[in-house]
Amino acid sequence: MEIPLGYRFAATYAGIRKSRKDDLALIVSDRPAAAAAVFTQNRVQAAPVRLSRMHLALSGGQVAAVLVNAGNANCATRTGDRVARETCRATARALGVAPAHVLPASTGVIGVELEPALITRALPACVAGLSSEHFARVAEAIMTTDTRPKTAAAQVKTPGGVIRIAGMTKGAGMIQPLMATTLAFVLTDAALRPGALRAILRRTVETSYNRLSVDGDTSTNDTMLLLANGAAGVTPTGKTLACYEGAVSEVMQDLARQIARDGEGATKLVTVEVKGAASERDAVRIARAIANSPLVKTAIAGSDPNWGRIICAAGNAGVPFDPAQVDIAMQGVKVCAAGLAAAFSEDELKRKLDGPECLIEFRIRGKGKGATRFWTCDFTAEYVRINASYRT
Amino acid sequence: MEIPLGYRFAATYAGIRKSRKDDLALIVSDRPAAAAAVFTQNRVQAAPVRLSRMHLALSGGQVAAVLVNAGNANCATRTGDRVARETCRATARALGVAPAHVLPASTGVIGVELEPALITRALPACVAGLSSEHFARVAEAIMTTDTRPKTAAAQVKTPGGVIRIAGMTKGAGMIQPLMATTLAFVLTDAALRPGALRAILRRTVETSYNRLSVDGDTSTNDTMLLLANGAAGVTPTGKTLACYEGAVSEVMQDLARQIARDGEGATKLVTVEVKGAASERDAVRIARAIANSPLVKTAIAGSDPNWGRIICAAGNAGVPFDPAQVDIAMQGVKVCAAGLAAAFSEDELKRKLDGPECLIEFRIRGKGKGATRFWTCDFTAEYVRINASYRT
Repeated sequence: MEIPLGYRFAATYAGIRKSRKDDLALIVSDRPAAAAAVFTQNRVQAAPVRLSRMHLALSGGQVAAVLVNAGNANCATRTGDRVARETCRATARALGVAPAHVLPASTGVIGVELEPALITRALPACVAGLSSEHFARVAEAIMTTDTRPKTAAAQVKTPGGVIRIAGMTKGAGMIQPLMATTLAFVLTDAALRPGALRAILRRTVETSYNRLSVDGDTSTNDTMLLLANGAAGVTPTGKTLACYEGAVSEVMQDLARQIARDGEGATKLVTVEVKGAASERDAVRIARAIANSPLVKTAIAGSDPNWGRIICAAGNAGVPFDPAQVDIAMQGVKVCAAGLAAAFSEDELKRKLDGPECLIEFRIRGKGKGATRFWTCDFTAEYVRINASYRT
Repeated sequence: MEIPLGYRFAATYAGIRKSRKDDLALIVSDRPAAAAAVFTQNRVQAAPVRLSRMHLALSGGQVAAVLVNAGNANCATRTGDRVARETCRATARALGVAPAHVLPASTGVIGVELEPALITRALPACVAGLSSEHFARVAEAIMTTDTRPKTAAAQVKTPGGVIRIAGMTKGAGMIQPLMATTLAFVLTDAALRPGALRAILRRTVETSYNRLSVDGDTSTNDTMLLLANGAAGVTPTGKTLACYEGAVSEVMQDLARQIARDGEGATKLVTVEVKGAASERDAVRIARAIANSPLVKTAIAGSDPNWGRIICAAGNAGVPFDPAQVDIAMQGVKVCAAGLAAAFSEDELKRKLDGPECLIEFRIRGKGKGATRFWTCDFTAEYVRINASYRT
C-alpha cells in the first residue's frame, strides 16, 4: 500500500483502555490539508464531534493533525468539552500548529470520564515517533471490538503525476452511519480546495458509509474525514477530478464493506441489492429494512433461504410496492418469482449460503429506476455474547 | 377465568405443522357478534388478512366464527386467496352461517402452499367438539414459537348485569405491531354496535399492541379482533361504556405484556417509560428506538446498566431533545442525571437487573407533556438459535 505523500503517523498505549494495546494515535499532515468531514446525525453528540465542527469552521476547512483515542468515546461526560479542548491544545503546541488545525476523534464507552492527563503525558512520545511508515499502526490503534484493522488505497494517474489515496476505518458494532460514519480517515495528496472536497465527500459517503448497517444503531461519535494536502503537486480538474472522485469512492466502499464483514459476531458479509423501486431513496429504504431485520440476519447465519422474511421485512420499509411484482434471488438463485415461491434446490442453496459472502437481490418488476447496493452482516449468538458483557 | 356468554371453542390437529400439536381452531359466537378489527400495516399482507377485510365490509362488521390455523401463514403463496375462501366457505356450511360471517386467520411460515384439504377434512371433528369449555385449548392451538399460551380476562359490573371480557393472543417473534397486532382475539358478551366497537378498538390498541416490540419486525398476518355478541343482555352506555373500554384496555395491555415476556429467547420483560417529550408521538418514537436497540437489549440480557447505549438509542429516534436535560433510571435507580453519569452502586444495580423484569425510565426535564409506556424484552443468544433454524 502506497501512502499519500506528506503525512506522518504515530500510535502508543496511553492507558485509556484496560488491555495493553495502542489506544492513542496521531495523523499529521506536514502542510495544512484541505479537509471535508461529516459527523453523526445522532441527537447526542460526543465532545470531540462538537469541537471538530468548531475547528473546521474556524480554520475554513484546514487540518494539520488528527488526534484519535480508542477506549473512551468522551461522550456524555461532565468534563468532555474541556478534555477535548485541552488535548487538542497540547497537540497543537507539540506540533507547532494552530489549535483550530487539530481535530479530535474518540471511540469507546459512553458516559465514563476521560482523564486528559493520560493523553497529554503520552503525547511527547507519540510526536517523537511520527513517521510516514506507521499508517498501519494507527489503523490498529483505533480498533475497539474490531477483529482486524481496515484499510484501503488507490492511485490516480494524471498527466501532472500520481495522486495517492489511503483510508482507514474502524467499527464493528453500533453501526448504522447516517449521513456520516463511524471513525474513518481518508488521506490524499492531491491539491484541492475545501469546498470541492466537501462536494466530493457528500456524494461518496452517500453510496458507501450511508449504505451500511451492522445493527441499526447510529453512534454518538461517527466521524468521516477526507484530507487533501497537495503534497503530490497535482491539482485534479475536469476528467482527472472525476477519476479522483471515483478512486475516493472506491476506497470508501471498500472500507464500508470491511466494516460489514467484521460486524460484531459476524460470519458473513451480506450485500443487499434493490432494483426497480420508484426512486433511489425508496430503494435505500427497502434495502435498509432488509439489512436491519434480525429475522433475515439470523436466517442467513443459519444458511436458511427463508425469503418470506425478506419480503416481510421489505413490506415494513414504508415504501409502496406490489408484492406480486417482486423477484428475490439469493446467491444468484431465484427463490421468489412474482411474490411466490420459485422452484430451487434447497440443499444446494444452503451449501452456497455457507460461504463467507451472501448476495440478496430484490427486484420490483416494472419501470422503476430506483436502485441501490447496501452492506450488512449476519446476526449470530456471538453478537449477543460480545454486547451482553462489553462494558464490564 | 370466566368466559363471555354465547361463545364456543374447539381445536384439533389437522396436520399443518410437523409436531403433533393442535394447529386448527374455531371460535364461534352463537349469534352474530359485532366486530372491530385492525390488521397489519405491512405492504405484504397474507390472504386471510385480505379476506377478513372483505368479509367485514360485506357483513357490515358482523362475525359468527373465526377459523384459525397455526403452522402456515398462508402468505405469498399461489393458492392463498382460494384456500382462505374455500376453508371459510366450508366452515360456514358446517355451522349454517353466511360465509361473510366467517373470518380466517393464519400464522406460521411464509411462502409455503397451505393444503386446504387438511383443514376441510379436520373441520367436522372440530365443529363436533365445539364447547364453551375449550377457550384455553384454542389459546394453545394458535401458538407457534410461543413457550406458553397467553390469555387475560376482566369483568364489568353494571346495573343491568355483568359483562365478561376474555382475550387470547400469540406471538414471540416478528413482533412489532403497528396500528395492529399479531393474532389476538378479545371476546366480550356486551351488546354494542360495530361502529362503537371500532372506536374502542382504535383507542385501546394504540396503548397496548402498538406499544410492543420483540424484534422490530412487523408480520404479514397481524390481526386483532374484538367481538361483542350481546349474550350478557347488557348494552353499556355512558359511565358503563367507559368502564367497559377501560376493562378491554386492561385485557389488551395484559396480553401485550405477556407477548413481550415470552419474546423469542427472552429472559426479561422490559418496560420503557418516557416522560417529558413534546408530544405523545415523540415519546413513542423515543421509547421504540430504545426498545428496538440490539445494544440496549443485549446489555439488559447481561444485567449491564449501560445507560450510554440508552441515551445513544434515544438520540437516533429522530426526535429533537437536549441530552443535557435527560435523566435515566433503571429499576428505580438513577443512572444518568442531566445527561451525565449519576453516582450509583454498580454491583447492587446489577443484582436488581438479574430479576425477571426491567424498568427503564427516560425523562426529559422541562414542561413537555408527552409520555408513554412501551414493552419489549431482552435479547439473548437463544433468539439467534431459534431464528437461525426456525424454518428447517
